[in-house]
Amino acid sequence: MYLRYPNGKQFDLKETVIKKAESTKSISYSNRGMTLESDLNITNQYYLENGIAVIHKKPTPVQIVNVDYQSRSTAVIKEAYFKQPSTTDYNGVYKGRYIDFEAKETQNSTSFPLKNFHEHQITHMRQVAAQKGISFVILRFSKTDDLFLLECHHLFTFWERMTAGGRKSITRKEIEQLGHAISIGLNPRIPYLYIVDQLFFKI
Amino acid sequence: MYLRYPNGKQFDLKETVIKKAESTKSISYSNRGMTLESDLNITNQYYLENGIAVIHKKPTPVQIVNVDYQSRSTAVIKEAYFKQPSTTDYNGVYKGRYIDFEAKETQNSTSFPLKNFHEHQITHMRQVAAQKGISFVILRFSKTDDLFLLECHHLFTFWERMTAGGRKSITRKEIEQLGHAISIGLNPRIPYLYIVDQLFFKI
Repeated sequence: MYLRYPNGKQFDLKETVIKKAESTKSISYSNRGMTLESDLNITNQYYLENGIAVIHKKPTPVQIVNVDYQSRSTAVIKEAYFKQPSTTDYNGVYKGRYIDFEAKETQNSTSFPLKNFHEHQITHMRQVAAQKGISFVILRFSKTDDLFLLECHHLFTFWERMTAGGRKSITRKEIEQLGHAISIGLNPRIPYLYIVDQLFFKI
Repeated sequence: MYLRYPNGKQFDLKETVIKKAESTKSISYSNRGMTLESDLNITNQYYLENGIAVIHKKPTPVQIVNVDYQSRSTAVIKEAYFKQPSTTDYNGVYKGRYIDFEAKETQNSTSFPLKNFHEHQITHMRQVAAQKGISFVILRFSKTDDLFLLECHHLFTFWERMTAGGRKSITRKEIEQLGHAISIGLNPRIPYLYIVDQLFFKI
């Protein structure tokens, strides 16, 4: 299967999948259909159960309009709408410090579109950074299952480049240079606190 | 109006309301019907806008069963159920530290029933404390609008007393002795970070 990039370069998806398969022999194929979110939930569960960190995904914000109280114990929500989150999805505590991050994935191979983030999420990350919280994004290139942790101040730079009229994405090269690759493991699946240790706890 | 305590002592609610009114002259009566939750949301909004802290209430967790995608842009949730929260309601960052708390109110006057908390919330607070997060509860006696901040380790003590077969509530006297009264203000309404400063930042 061949995809053609806007720049005209051909991309052999099949070859990439084979390469990937070779490089991640230890990972069960039953995990293939799993999303970044479920991998992070498993990871956070591992951190929680092992007393390493307490980090949870926030519930999806929903505007509830109509609830049917059929009985005293059961209430059925009959009408509700998805609300745009006002914060990032994940937060919690690690070694006393506040951890806050957003996780996003793209089907693109050469760049990460900034439309994955909302203005108010960027605002939230700025507020967290101002309070000396640890704030970052976890970016996944789904085709190759490559994961990076990018500190929020780099994201702010690219966001400002966009709002100043520049490109609407971060190039993969920029992410490789400024971000930190996360090697996928078996348990925890996405050991991002290893990177947090290196960046914020200098151990 | 007179209420009788279990210990036989009479309690003059009217007198208390008058006392309360005298001591909080600056508070508008239009706020009377407001709940603890909305007061805390206003407080957290004040802290956020003034760059003091970033603390949000988590969305109510909902199990979504059926969604009607009427068009590309609008999705209506047609069937969903309330899930029991696995954490406390409020968390965020203050001066780099992780803040985590639950807020509850009671109509009782002489004790605070522990049934306001769930076992897994206590577990969550223990996990947060183990990670050196700042964890507490804000307790409100609605009849008199008295508010207290009680550090989590005191709550654990009372929880253990209950599970060991003891009383299923914390007496008001215990809360007065071990907790910290929060004086209701105009802005912020519930200045709980003032207590957090005294307890955790020794300023």
